[in-house]
Amino acid sequence: MKNKLGKQSFQFPFRPRIIGSCSIVGEKEGKGPMAKWFDLILEDDTFGEKTWEKAESKMLKQAILIALQKSGHEKENIDTMLSGDLINQLMSSSFMARDLSIPYLGIYGACSTMTESMILGSMMIDGGYASNILIGASSHYCTAERQFRMPLEHGNQRPPSAQWTSTAAGGMVLSSDDKGDSAVTQGQQVKEIYITHATPGKIIDTGITDSNQMGPAMVPAAVDTIVRHLTDTGRSPDYYDIILTGDLGLIGKEIAIDLLNGAGLNVANVYDDCGAMMYDKKQDTHSGGSGCGCSASIFCGYVYREMRAGKIKNALLVSTGALLSTISSQQGESIPGIAHAVAVTTERGN
Amino acid sequence: MKNKLGKQSFQFPFRPRIIGSCSIVGEKEGKGPMAKWFDLILEDDTFGEKTWEKAESKMLKQAILIALQKSGHEKENIDTMLSGDLINQLMSSSFMARDLSIPYLGIYGACSTMTESMILGSMMIDGGYASNILIGASSHYCTAERQFRMPLEHGNQRPPSAQWTSTAAGGMVLSSDDKGDSAVTQGQQVKEIYITHATPGKIIDTGITDSNQMGPAMVPAAVDTIVRHLTDTGRSPDYYDIILTGDLGLIGKEIAIDLLNGAGLNVANVYDDCGAMMYDKKQDTHSGGSGCGCSASIFCGYVYREMRAGKIKNALLVSTGALLSTISSQQGESIPGIAHAVAVTTERGN
Repeated sequence: MKNKLGKQSFQFPFRPRIIGSCSIVGEKEGKGPMAKWFDLILEDDTFGEKTWEKAESKMLKQAILIALQKSGHEKENIDTMLSGDLINQLMSSSFMARDLSIPYLGIYGACSTMTESMILGSMMIDGGYASNILIGASSHYCTAERQFRMPLEHGNQRPPSAQWTSTAAGGMVLSSDDKGDSAVTQGQQVKEIYITHATPGKIIDTGITDSNQMGPAMVPAAVDTIVRHLTDTGRSPDYYDIILTGDLGLIGKEIAIDLLNGAGLNVANVYDDCGAMMYDKKQDTHSGGSGCGCSASIFCGYVYREMRAGKIKNALLVSTGALLSTISSQQGESIPGIAHAVAVTTERGN
Repeated sequence: MKNKLGKQSFQFPFRPRIIGSCSIVGEKEGKGPMAKWFDLILEDDTFGEKTWEKAESKMLKQAILIALQKSGHEKENIDTMLSGDLINQLMSSSFMARDLSIPYLGIYGACSTMTESMILGSMMIDGGYASNILIGASSHYCTAERQFRMPLEHGNQRPPSAQWTSTAAGGMVLSSDDKGDSAVTQGQQVKEIYITHATPGKIIDTGITDSNQMGPAMVPAAVDTIVRHLTDTGRSPDYYDIILTGDLGLIGKEIAIDLLNGAGLNVANVYDDCGAMMYDKKQDTHSGGSGCGCSASIFCGYVYREMRAGKIKNALLVSTGALLSTISSQQGESIPGIAHAVAVTTERGN
């Protein structure tokens, strides 16, 4: 257990690199405050496909293929691919992976999928089972609404606590080797990004049954994972330039700050939430964004680019998932929450 | 990449052990030819719960808890848990994991879930990220029928090629350490079981769109993974005492034998399929069993016990998944197939 740290965390001594990244978002997300960080903004959320599900799958595939291109590798150099999404039976990921013909492992962590992929992918590289791994996660407002809530045509009224499933996808290439020369762009040396630690989370369910309160339902899991990560690694919150949860939304973010303060952790200067960052208040999404693609696209866009540019040195991404289904809600079950944390740095050495 | 072997396989030099295992099946499965190998046969497929989904989740939880008990470990010694099932958003696994309060990673590979869990769990142990891992997979006839096909009350007529989703669950404890003394049962030294290699599979889709032809839809992926595994490891089929696919069913099994013969591999003496083994022909399941729980329970029951007893030395489990969803079928998509292989042995050394 040379690479287990504390009660629940892992360290990656060989420091897998993120050598390629791509974020794609839909129209609405492209009009929000994060717009400038995304690689591609769709002009039309159908992305030229006949169904929203096919559009989501295409968006995920494009994100992964552009990340691959930016890594400087060919498909043939990729050992395994890890991906997930919110559609039943991971339809977006399965059909994306079908087209790529790379060994594929599907994972499901609801909106925590991106960090779950990052943890397992990092382990595959750090443990010497792979040199290059493709990972991805996606969500789409229209596929999620009709699967989890109501047909769009119904014009469902959303309560103020509801979050807006982001039409978004993120893809990354993790590698055992430096990005190296290709990292010099426009005459400027850009930073390598290393994945150094991870903390997979426990499921915590505080009994919330209202699926329009998903942010608050996930907060206890997010806080538990953050506290556990800091304890296991012996770090304080200000070790990080940014601690990002995703996606607690506007209401969940406030509760998370309260709970973290209650645990003696002052995160005021470093903490934000991907769901709270994705939209402007006047975009009328109520409590902000959600969906696997929300934290995936913000990490693959904003965080990745700012790290490459040396503006962010140490980041902790804590994607959060609400593990409910329509059937579990119909059967009166409450919402199990989960959160997985991944620590990335641009600093060399440990 | 010290632990990658050939194009697509991994080796596990630290040889994770399977130190506990449990299989639970439903009434019908308990009347089939494999009955004597299961740890628990339900008297009633509702397992005392109000809904089938809750029954499946309880069955999975019991399988995991009994495997844990048989491993001689406490819940506190478990580092992480990996599990999946067929219900949308992995309802059985999520609610099982909620009750156990162990870091949890959800995975989805349709009926290939058990080997996907074994691969990722073995990597976590072999790479030094964990000492003990719990893994599990489940399926339930009644949850699958109403989710993927028709309400049971509809009395849907099944074509001869249809497979019967097994009501079954399997749980295992993987460990970095020998089972040791506790392996001496009833005065008889039983064998350690080591996981030595794995081959994650690619998605192969040959254009079959009929969801009553799932076995045949998965065959090409299964054959591809077996051929790839044997090539990567330099082994011939008779290296193994048993090569088990799961779950191609009766029709799929015949096609697999043909294709393997066509590839110059004579598997006549060693090959079988979990879906073909699960039921007696007179049980009227048509083309045999399917579902994550089918290969999980047959491996955790029959294979595990025969290996412990020294009757099987080398086994290759190749769980197969049909990555379709109701929505993908409705949208005219064909069925993507996948298969992941795991090699286990009772032989010491390499």
